[in-house]
Amino acid sequence: MTVGPQHELIETFANPRPERDYLITHTCHEFTSVCPKTGQPDFATINIEYVADGECLELKALKFYLQSFRNKGIFYEAVTNQILDDLVQASRPRRMTVIGNFNVRGGFSSVIRADYDSKESPR
Amino acid sequence: MTVGPQHELIETFANPRPERDYLITHTCHEFTSVCPKTGQPDFATINIEYVADGECLELKALKFYLQSFRNKGIFYEAVTNQILDDLVQASRPRRMTVIGNFNVRGGFSSVIRADYDSKESPR
Amino acid sequence: MTVGPQHELIETFANPRPERDYLITHTCHEFTSVCPKTGQPDFATINIEYVADGECLELKALKFYLQSFRNKGIFYEAVTNQILDDLVQASRPRRMTVIGNFNVRGGFSSVIRADYDSKESPR
Amino acid sequence: MTVGPQHELIETFANPRPERDYLITHTCHEFTSVCPKTGQPDFATINIEYVADGECLELKALKFYLQSFRNKGIFYEAVTNQILDDLVQASRPRRMTVIGNFNVRGGFSSVIRADYDSKESPR
Amino acid sequence: MTVGPQHELIETFANPRPERDYLITHTCHEFTSVCPKTGQPDFATINIEYVADGECLELKALKFYLQSFRNKGIFYEAVTNQILDDLVQASRPRRMTVIGNFNVRGGFSSVIRADYDSKESPR
Amino acid sequence: MTVGPQHELIETFANPRPERDYLITHTCHEFTSVCPKTGQPDFATINIEYVADGECLELKALKFYLQSFRNKGIFYEAVTNQILDDLVQASRPRRMTVIGNFNVRGGFSSVIRADYDSKESPR
Amino acid sequence: MTVGPQHELIETFANPRPERDYLITHTCHEFTSVCPKTGQPDFATINIEYVADGECLELKALKFYLQSFRNKGIFYEAVTNQILDDLVQASRPRRMTVIGNFNVRGGFSSVIRADYDSKESPR
Amino acid sequence: MTVGPQHELIETFANPRPERDYLITHTCHEFTSVCPKTGQPDFATINIEYVADGECLELKALKFYLQSFRNKGIFYEAVTNQILDDLVQASRPRRMTVIGNFNVRGGFSSVIRADYDSKESPR
Amino acid sequence: MTVGPQHELIETFANPRPERDYLITHTCHEFTSVCPKTGQPDFATINIEYVADGECLELKALKFYLQSFRNKGIFYEAVTNQILDDLVQASRPRRMTVIGNFNVRGGFSSVIRADYDSKESPR
Amino acid sequence: MTVGPQHELIETFANPRPERDYLITHTCHEFTSVCPKTGQPDFATINIEYVADGECLELKALKFYLQSFRNKGIFYEAVTNQILDDLVQASRPRRMTVIGNFNVRGGFSSVIRADYDSKESPR
Repeated sequence: MTVGPQHELIETFANPRPERDYLITHTCHEFTSVCPKTGQPDFATINIEYVADGECLELKALKFYLQSFRNKGIFYEAVTNQILDDLVQASRPRRMTVIGNFNVRGGFSSVIRADYDSKESPR
Repeated sequence: MTVGPQHELIETFANPRPERDYLITHTCHEFTSVCPKTGQPDFATINIEYVADGECLELKALKFYLQSFRNKGIFYEAVTNQILDDLVQASRPRRMTVIGNFNVRGGFSSVIRADYDSKESPR
Repeated sequence: MTVGPQHELIETFANPRPERDYLITHTCHEFTSVCPKTGQPDFATINIEYVADGECLELKALKFYLQSFRNKGIFYEAVTNQILDDLVQASRPRRMTVIGNFNVRGGFSSVIRADYDSKESPR
Repeated sequence: MTVGPQHELIETFANPRPERDYLITHTCHEFTSVCPKTGQPDFATINIEYVADGECLELKALKFYLQSFRNKGIFYEAVTNQILDDLVQASRPRRMTVIGNFNVRGGFSSVIRADYDSKESPR
Repeated sequence: MTVGPQHELIETFANPRPERDYLITHTCHEFTSVCPKTGQPDFATINIEYVADGECLELKALKFYLQSFRNKGIFYEAVTNQILDDLVQASRPRRMTVIGNFNVRGGFSSVIRADYDSKESPR
Repeated sequence: MTVGPQHELIETFANPRPERDYLITHTCHEFTSVCPKTGQPDFATINIEYVADGECLELKALKFYLQSFRNKGIFYEAVTNQILDDLVQASRPRRMTVIGNFNVRGGFSSVIRADYDSKESPR
Repeated sequence: MTVGPQHELIETFANPRPERDYLITHTCHEFTSVCPKTGQPDFATINIEYVADGECLELKALKFYLQSFRNKGIFYEAVTNQILDDLVQASRPRRMTVIGNFNVRGGFSSVIRADYDSKESPR
Repeated sequence: MTVGPQHELIETFANPRPERDYLITHTCHEFTSVCPKTGQPDFATINIEYVADGECLELKALKFYLQSFRNKGIFYEAVTNQILDDLVQASRPRRMTVIGNFNVRGGFSSVIRADYDSKESPR
Repeated sequence: MTVGPQHELIETFANPRPERDYLITHTCHEFTSVCPKTGQPDFATINIEYVADGECLELKALKFYLQSFRNKGIFYEAVTNQILDDLVQASRPRRMTVIGNFNVRGGFSSVIRADYDSKESPR
Repeated sequence: MTVGPQHELIETFANPRPERDYLITHTCHEFTSVCPKTGQPDFATINIEYVADGECLELKALKFYLQSFRNKGIFYEAVTNQILDDLVQASRPRRMTVIGNFNVRGGFSSVIRADYDSKESPR
């Protein structure tokens, strides 16, 4: 198995309408990573919702970034937070939410939701 | 390929009930434009929701205006904002929201939502 | 084509519980009128939601009133507002909302929503 | 036709967790009564949502109570309010909502929603 | 029948991102317990939604804990509150909601929702 | 409780197109009878599908006939066969199928399907 | 009420591929006629499925033909057979099926299906 | 864990219409057994479809019989065939099908379908 | 408008398993052409189902071929048959079906289905 | 990327009821492989339906076998046929069908279905 997520794959382009707060949502229906405990693959839908400031996320690069988790062992809670942190770091949005919606395992489905707001100080 | 959107196609008619703030929503289920990077067609549902002031959007003209994007190369973020700007310019609504809901590309679907409110000053 | 809506068809009965603000919703799944431009029939679902004061809308009479639009030429925005105005006039509710949800025409579906509140002064 | 609703069928049991405000919802998918005008049966889904104080509604007794409307002639607005009044009277909840969702008649479906809150004085 | 729920089965792991308030939802689609009155099995979907403080719920242990109700006689209202109390006790979350969504019995489905918030004092 | 089904309520009218074998389906979404064991009401959707010979089933009379089971104690298997027998007797169809689709009881839903064909001799 | 269906509105065009048996289906989601007994409007979806011989049904003319039933009093069984007879007469298909799917009335929905095959002699 | 399925729980009653071949379907939405390998509970919907000869399956007894698998360790293929064999043995139907539709495990759902026909000799 | 479909865009690759008759289905969710009468765009889902002989359809080339209809004026019946003829000509399948499922126009949706079988002689 | 599918991972167990032809269906909702042309991941649901002879497919081993395609470059048509060939080779079923249902790429979804029957000689 190769090593995991490569945040340097994220690319941005100049926001075409920075004077307006508008909402951009990209939903990746085909996310897969690996359970660090069992080595078994996990599958999820990843929802990324943000208000851009100067930069927008380039969609093809975003796809390659999420694909870099394909053979990475990582828990649900960690992967959702890491995607949010990497994307905030790379694109400096006004606000962003990442939601990981993970497939059924042992009769349980799981959803992790993490939010970032540039106007709030961390807890 | 011919040139793109023609805002002069937009037509309006007198709001039949201007003394009331009521909500009008038109949903175009058949929007198509072209990806400026790959030249491939994009497909979307475009949702237009507004409170009219003096003028309402004429529906047939609205259809022709959205059809004028058919062979235009333009990104998701730009097209959603341009539709909002063109419609606000032509019909001077009290408020308006445009939502572009774009079909799956490479396992990703995207939704862009932009709002205008005549009572707010721009950011 | 015969003449259109007949508000005198609306009937009411005494609200059985006027001391409580409770919400009544009637949804007509089979509304049809005529496009004044093309002469073609339009089809819609009409949603009527209100808090009665002294009077409730009698359901069978409401059906006959909505049927009186069957051969009337009238636009989406006008018909929704007229239904609200006629019903408010006839039943004097505490508040009322009428939503017209019109079938696809030329790839577009449309929803018009108008609200009345007895406690608000008109705009 | 036999006589109608028998509120004395309602039974309660001691709330197992009265120190917490938690929400209990029971949905009866099989409510039927009779239209007082036509003598024809009406069918509805009845939704009962409440925060218990000292007493919870016993589910089997609740079923028998709602069945006692089976051959009772009563209008939509009246039956929904009566169920709320009878259940409030019998169980003294902190708050309660009853929603009657009535099947299509003559192309119309109807929903009646009534709320009770022990902390509000009646209108 | 064997004895019931074993809260000592619950395990936690260190929250990987305690400085952020983020929402974790686990939905168990296969909960079953026993009706204490009839001895008949009950079936439910159990939804657990929380903001972790120092500790996250370990998913496999959570499964074993919920399985320990399999042969336990307990009412809907009690089981939902007990799960909330046990999980709060074991993981000390910032806030938590447990929703039990119980299958149809005698034409009724039931939903019980209980909330805990570390910042609120009990009623 | 009053006595049960009254087959004399069934009415027919002359088949408007007897030279053609065409299929007529009526679906009653609101059938209710009573369990003869427990006295509890049962609820079902009843599907009646037939090819008329000389006579068609009159729909309003069919409704009254099915309503006559409202307070009748009868099992699923018996009621489905009786409806088929009564309707065949009254309307002499070329062929007919009755399907009773009964609501969940104790975690079980049930469907009974019985067929009649005038060209087949009974088993 | 005005007079009813006008079969002379039906138009055809030359089948572009007569050497192949291929299936054409047009579904009218907005059919309405009038109940001859009550004078109340009926609503249906009409499905027309056929294999053309020399002529195909022109879609706009088909719409006008079906609209000519708008104020015609006619029963479900009769209207479905008449549409089939009129369309067969006008377009001489190899085979054709008409299905009328009528909205709920008094808790009943109805479906009428009639078939024509040029290779079969009538019953 | 207690011992498993008890076929002696199955009860029958006399077929009310033995001269007709009609189809009876009971669907248990709440079947649970135990995986013999992992000791973990399995969940399924069990569909039982049959044409009775002299005897029909009594529904409440059928429920108790299926509940007797609750703590039994048994594989999908074996449990489906055993239910079919036990029910055929007890009720001697003309034909019977049992379908077990098992919940997702490790990303896989499974369906097992077994048929019995009294007129066929075994393979 | 530019000129229309370019069958020379179709490409094939060698069938990896020609000794087996297996079924390949490609569904294009984003087909658009132009109505030759009104000049308005049409939208459809195109379903292509075939058993390959020596050659399989290359998916990307198939996409470009279907895109070449984008600005072509052509009726529903003609476009479905032409796609079938072009694909049969280019790939010589054992059998093939093309289904065009066209969006609502004037309250009508349409489906055209055409089949080819190498073992049948044309009608 | 590591090398691909490992048919030696497939395991079987003795069919518990070989004297009966019964149908076993396993559906893998989480199949992923890699496009050999673009290097991009593909996603599919794989449906495996078979009648066992002496051996049944062990479900956990089947999961590992399908996971071995995770980093393998292979086309839709080839992967579906290879899974069928590998499973037939390993388990010698009476008959088997494999259906690969691949996610949308460039606006196209694809389904490949391949069948094996031990009683038929190859084409």
